[in-house]
Amino acid sequence: MNQSTLFGKTSKTSPKDEVSTNANLLIRGGFVDKVMAGVYSYLPLGLRVLQKVQNIIREEMNALGGQEILMPALQPKEPWMQTGRWSDPGPEVMFRVIGREDKEFGLGWTHEEIVTPLAKKFISSYKDLPLALFQIQDKFRNEPRAKSGILRGREFNMKDLYSFHANQDDLNTFYDQAQKAYAKIFDRCGLHALVTESSGGAFSKYSHEFQVLTENGEDIIFYCSKCEYAQNREISEYKTGDQCPKCNGVMAEGKAIEVGNIFKLKTRFTDAFDVKFTDENGKQQPVLMGCYGIGPSRVMGAIVETCNDGAGIIWPAAVAPYDAHIIPLGEEEIVTELLDEVVEELEDAGVSVLVDDRAATVGAKFADADLIGLPTRIVVSSKSLSKGGVEVKRRREQTAEIISKKDVLTWLQK
Amino acid sequence: MNQSTLFGKTSKTSPKDEVSTNANLLIRGGFVDKVMAGVYSYLPLGLRVLQKVQNIIREEMNALGGQEILMPALQPKEPWMQTGRWSDPGPEVMFRVIGREDKEFGLGWTHEEIVTPLAKKFISSYKDLPLALFQIQDKFRNEPRAKSGILRGREFNMKDLYSFHANQDDLNTFYDQAQKAYAKIFDRCGLHALVTESSGGAFSKYSHEFQVLTENGEDIIFYCSKCEYAQNREISEYKTGDQCPKCNGVMAEGKAIEVGNIFKLKTRFTDAFDVKFTDENGKQQPVLMGCYGIGPSRVMGAIVETCNDGAGIIWPAAVAPYDAHIIPLGEEEIVTELLDEVVEELEDAGVSVLVDDRAATVGAKFADADLIGLPTRIVVSSKSLSKGGVEVKRRREQTAEIISKKDVLTWLQK
Repeated sequence: MNQSTLFGKTSKTSPKDEVSTNANLLIRGGFVDKVMAGVYSYLPLGLRVLQKVQNIIREEMNALGGQEILMPALQPKEPWMQTGRWSDPGPEVMFRVIGREDKEFGLGWTHEEIVTPLAKKFISSYKDLPLALFQIQDKFRNEPRAKSGILRGREFNMKDLYSFHANQDDLNTFYDQAQKAYAKIFDRCGLHALVTESSGGAFSKYSHEFQVLTENGEDIIFYCSKCEYAQNREISEYKTGDQCPKCNGVMAEGKAIEVGNIFKLKTRFTDAFDVKFTDENGKQQPVLMGCYGIGPSRVMGAIVETCNDGAGIIWPAAVAPYDAHIIPLGEEEIVTELLDEVVEELEDAGVSVLVDDRAATVGAKFADADLIGLPTRIVVSSKSLSKGGVEVKRRREQTAEIISKKDVLTWLQK
Repeated sequence: MNQSTLFGKTSKTSPKDEVSTNANLLIRGGFVDKVMAGVYSYLPLGLRVLQKVQNIIREEMNALGGQEILMPALQPKEPWMQTGRWSDPGPEVMFRVIGREDKEFGLGWTHEEIVTPLAKKFISSYKDLPLALFQIQDKFRNEPRAKSGILRGREFNMKDLYSFHANQDDLNTFYDQAQKAYAKIFDRCGLHALVTESSGGAFSKYSHEFQVLTENGEDIIFYCSKCEYAQNREISEYKTGDQCPKCNGVMAEGKAIEVGNIFKLKTRFTDAFDVKFTDENGKQQPVLMGCYGIGPSRVMGAIVETCNDGAGIIWPAAVAPYDAHIIPLGEEEIVTELLDEVVEELEDAGVSVLVDDRAATVGAKFADADLIGLPTRIVVSSKSLSKGGVEVKRRREQTAEIISKKDVLTWLQK
């Protein structure tokens, strides 16, 4: 992709109405545009990141045995009345939509009220269980404050997985597998997430959140820096300085961003919709449920919050919008020829590149490369040529080096 | 994929509350589930079709030079007030959303009010033009009647493309290219769409619709069956029996489904948001716009309406949820072994297969294969083995044939 035609431009100045690091860097870098508080458009660079996060999640959900479906955002009132969640939590969470003849609908902020009646239609026997359904879909929340950029949107992208089981053992086994899949997803996305005990509601002692420590986090957790055992402050039995209950480490307090959560719903929703199955002995039994959420847009925001420096974003390779930023300097024929050769070789090898073909100063190009934050930068100039090839630098490192053109691919794959 | 674990089951009986062919077949086949009138969930089979349609569209939009972005469904009132479309058309088209302190938002049914101010932020010079932005995103319409299945949803998937130009010639050139890209998309999706002149609104003589002739269409067009020149009845200067103005054919009347439309907006929205650019001579000039829509969910519905027979759907190969339906009959070891070999060979070659491993009668399996409508059916049984291999049949053909196992891939690719 040529940067001169890429939609979206970088900006040196911070947007006036944003306080969060993620919104500031994502807007300045040309990744997103603010439509109103808590609602953003994704520009080409930002959408590429979001889609990469979604695809990592999709792969791990498929590997877990999940089947992808797609449920609607516009939802009837009736199933929400049936679970009691039309009024608790009410319109302070769920946006109301007014249809014809003042008929009310809701905008989905979660999908238990849709997925449970759906699963009920196809579950009759123990042979239909277990079942795991997931979707990647946009959700809505009537947030009171929406000052955290894409970390807390009034419209936001979610991957939600719902599992259905014949018994507690089966639910427990799947829950553990889902937890491992989640750890793998965050790892692949370049996030270090602590599995944090949180309130389990009426049916379980704990649910589990995946919390990424960062000064800009909205949550507060107590965690052991040695074994990483963690609890959300809301339920924590510990305070700073307490001994860790799992090892000889010490508990500390930290701010964190919740990037995912998993929850044993047990029969909370299957009771409400009377979802039963016939077991091996012909007896009717209640179906047990679990739910598992990750917000791809929030994951993207958390990556920006934790992977940046004074100059801009530092994208982990797996979610970077392009693999390499190629910066030609000068318009001499030898530069253009080398540029074409490098681009062709990399693209043929499946490396995606952003070529800064703009008429801009060296300083402006380098500053923008740091702001946009692709993992690697490759400078092609007559100066680099005179020194034997191209100048390469990793975004995380301070210094550049000159390598021969034929070594670029090897260097990139290192 | 094994059919025994695939979420969604076929049904022999038609849903009581559906009158459209597409909803009837898609629900019976386990592709979609109705949540309420005009709102559907996509089950795994249905979502695979939808995603294939989306990917065909995405490929052609990229080839056209479009850049993919993603704009929100939840939209502020202000830009809609600015264009006059908050009240005309008002809540009879755009769902109202109620937020905190009774603040009103709209649910997007189109995105000129979002994309125009967005483009304005990055267009200043003639060097920024032309520009083409598209998204694949879910839209909402407060439909009075929603009886047409996924052809006319209150929530529906859309690909909308917006183009921005420095002058009329450039808009005209891009419009013609977009028309060709659309023709290619429908062709790849197995739809024969007539380019149909329609009302151009205040700024153009005509816009163009892509209309697929079918008895269940909601639109009425007059068309020449010889050269395919067509006009929407709403503006038509012709009636049945008139001579075609383009050839010596005769105009006929037909019902049709509109699967896409393209429209020269000219300065309708750039005037409203004061979007100007500086031309080569330093003069401020208005930016011209075009918009181009295709609904992937409607395309999927139109395919079902036009590609079916008494037994079920007949998916065109490019959008079929799986390439082949493999039906093992009997549990003898030779059958299982051959099945495994065939599945492995096909999947290794990139052929996606649905294996009907259910304990069901031959009749039930064949009836479901016809209903689900994959392009090819491969039966593996001791009977087929005794005759020399496997029994293969195309969904569009009446008769099956026996071929050797080693010829299956060649037969499939024929």
